[in-house]
Amino acid sequence: MASTIFHDRPVFPRGFRCASRNVGLKPQAKDLAVFASDVDAAVAAIFTRNHFPGAPVIVGREIIRGGRLRAVVVNSKVSNVATGQSGIDNVRRMAAAAGTELGTSPANVLVGSTGVIGVPLPIDLIERGIRGIAADLQDNPLVGAEGIMTTDRHPKALSTTVGNATVTWVAKGSGMIEPNMATMLVYIFTDAALDAATLDRMLRAAADVSFNMLSVDSDTSTSDTCAILANGFAGAVNEAAFSDALMAGCTRMTEILARDGEGAMRMIRATVQGALDMHEAKRVAKSLVNSPLVKTMVAGADPNVGRLLMAVGKCFDCTVRPQTTNAWINGHPVVAGGQRLDFEDAIVRETLRAEVVDLEVSLGVGDGTARAYGCDLTAGYVEENAAYYSS
Amino acid sequence: MASTIFHDRPVFPRGFRCASRNVGLKPQAKDLAVFASDVDAAVAAIFTRNHFPGAPVIVGREIIRGGRLRAVVVNSKVSNVATGQSGIDNVRRMAAAAGTELGTSPANVLVGSTGVIGVPLPIDLIERGIRGIAADLQDNPLVGAEGIMTTDRHPKALSTTVGNATVTWVAKGSGMIEPNMATMLVYIFTDAALDAATLDRMLRAAADVSFNMLSVDSDTSTSDTCAILANGFAGAVNEAAFSDALMAGCTRMTEILARDGEGAMRMIRATVQGALDMHEAKRVAKSLVNSPLVKTMVAGADPNVGRLLMAVGKCFDCTVRPQTTNAWINGHPVVAGGQRLDFEDAIVRETLRAEVVDLEVSLGVGDGTARAYGCDLTAGYVEENAAYYSS
Repeated sequence: MASTIFHDRPVFPRGFRCASRNVGLKPQAKDLAVFASDVDAAVAAIFTRNHFPGAPVIVGREIIRGGRLRAVVVNSKVSNVATGQSGIDNVRRMAAAAGTELGTSPANVLVGSTGVIGVPLPIDLIERGIRGIAADLQDNPLVGAEGIMTTDRHPKALSTTVGNATVTWVAKGSGMIEPNMATMLVYIFTDAALDAATLDRMLRAAADVSFNMLSVDSDTSTSDTCAILANGFAGAVNEAAFSDALMAGCTRMTEILARDGEGAMRMIRATVQGALDMHEAKRVAKSLVNSPLVKTMVAGADPNVGRLLMAVGKCFDCTVRPQTTNAWINGHPVVAGGQRLDFEDAIVRETLRAEVVDLEVSLGVGDGTARAYGCDLTAGYVEENAAYYSS
Repeated sequence: MASTIFHDRPVFPRGFRCASRNVGLKPQAKDLAVFASDVDAAVAAIFTRNHFPGAPVIVGREIIRGGRLRAVVVNSKVSNVATGQSGIDNVRRMAAAAGTELGTSPANVLVGSTGVIGVPLPIDLIERGIRGIAADLQDNPLVGAEGIMTTDRHPKALSTTVGNATVTWVAKGSGMIEPNMATMLVYIFTDAALDAATLDRMLRAAADVSFNMLSVDSDTSTSDTCAILANGFAGAVNEAAFSDALMAGCTRMTEILARDGEGAMRMIRATVQGALDMHEAKRVAKSLVNSPLVKTMVAGADPNVGRLLMAVGKCFDCTVRPQTTNAWINGHPVVAGGQRLDFEDAIVRETLRAEVVDLEVSLGVGDGTARAYGCDLTAGYVEENAAYYSS
């Protein structure tokens, strides 16, 4: 895969704009964003696999089936999950409000909500607050990114060029929401001309090696959504080049989200090679980034490498042979043949203080490779998530 | 199952004694314990499923195959894991040293080690320190329990009576070891006359609903061991009654271990009923006690019940229907038909401050039930596990 260059400052593809506002769900910070295409765009999306999807996910699946989208409207603070039929009704009202402002049918508007579960969506505030938002539309993706932030420490947007086309990612992270669950929302915009089926195929392939390999705390939100919109303004693109760029951008955004996990000081990137197959490689890589003991080891910058073996070894159903298992921390060999090497403790300890900690494991039993993304576990995570949500 | 009464102060069955000492692995605290039967006892054991078992587990599996045991010797501070052939040799030397002191063959001695991984066992200190330990043998199980403690906040022993027989549990907990991985060691002693095959069957059944349903942090130690020794001094017992008592004691000890998890303030007991089958009930119950967001919710005494739904809903491969899902916190209904109930927040908040937090979920899709045991996730856990292991 050719290396992908991201723009210094993210830009939108032709025909896409966004706006964001405070509509009163939060005291002051922005809590509503819209993203709009000038014309109907082809769309594909992936939603949470959680059995309790939020109302926006339930309605969103229906909307996406049409394959066309004109706009995305997102609120933070309240997730509209576990709210029953009135939750569904509120999604439709929110889509209708955005559709009215943007001159399109609610059937072309994807709704996202993120925040506390089981609380009714203050739909009146949203309907009132969205009025006139079309006049605010402008072309800086960071403005939209700011509107969907919760406890993210910074707005998240990326863009790159593929032939004549631009691809732009806007996301909110795995920061806790009013301390509620980590929700990932990713919206991808392009002016390339690609149909819904092609977008769907490419998005699933890209998400498989990026967002689906991200874990901040092993908990799966009821609201996770990743959608891609293509409005065709730039005409046809080389599909292979587009697919590569899509994968690269999704991977970069995954790293940005991992790095900004709740309370996180460091990103953990776990690479597994030599597994029996890709599925086992994914299992082991995820076990590494999900292990509380590996996560606290990284938080403490402590080369307690037995924890790596523990996390690999607890994948009971995978083929693991101690005698062929090697491991590295940021390139330094720490385990060979299942045994701890007599490495220079101070050097490995120092490298663990880097912002990105690469854990590599070679299993020596096959050709399966995978990479997973996570972050360290700090007291900050606990503090953020143990606080009273209603205070 | 009849309710089991545990003795106010734990006692040993006839013919069992123990001793513990500091042999210099730790600065001052006890770091070595022996448990001895006056005669060979029938034995069964269960070991960790981790692919990187410690040397004592590798040798232990071999020892247990003989079905007879005379003694158990355990050290803390160093786990003897990932130490290769010299680790195996050190287990045999430790068994030989204990065998010499207790007048039995090393083939009748089970060795346990718990502590840092990948560090050579200071076998010379152990061989020197164990000398004369036979003279220290006495009949208080808490003395042996004290010898195997690591960061456990208290020694853990229990006993009960079945007919003429006594059953005694001695355990060390899921406290972090020099901050290394949580290891569970449980030794069960009885003077009932039961053969190894019967013990094995009963132990597996009891562990399935107790120790195997315990999770402090979802990480599986490389050293977990649970063994039962029966020396026959009390003659035959009613097997059903014994099995009931064994299950009750293992469950009680599981609760004690959960309550003393690293940094834990509260025990979480998750009961699932109405699952498709027992396997799915176990999956959902474990998902609840393993979810960082549920664990921090309990730490914060915060009735953020959406997190319960999230943790149930992320069991992707289980049958979960929002409309038939109900949930309770310490008996208070908080979710019905997949929707958050309008419960009295202050009352549920107050009950979450109890030492034991019962989370109950009814899935309404079958007859499967299960209970899992865990603890809350506090900043104390992170602090304990992010500290430098070598300082």
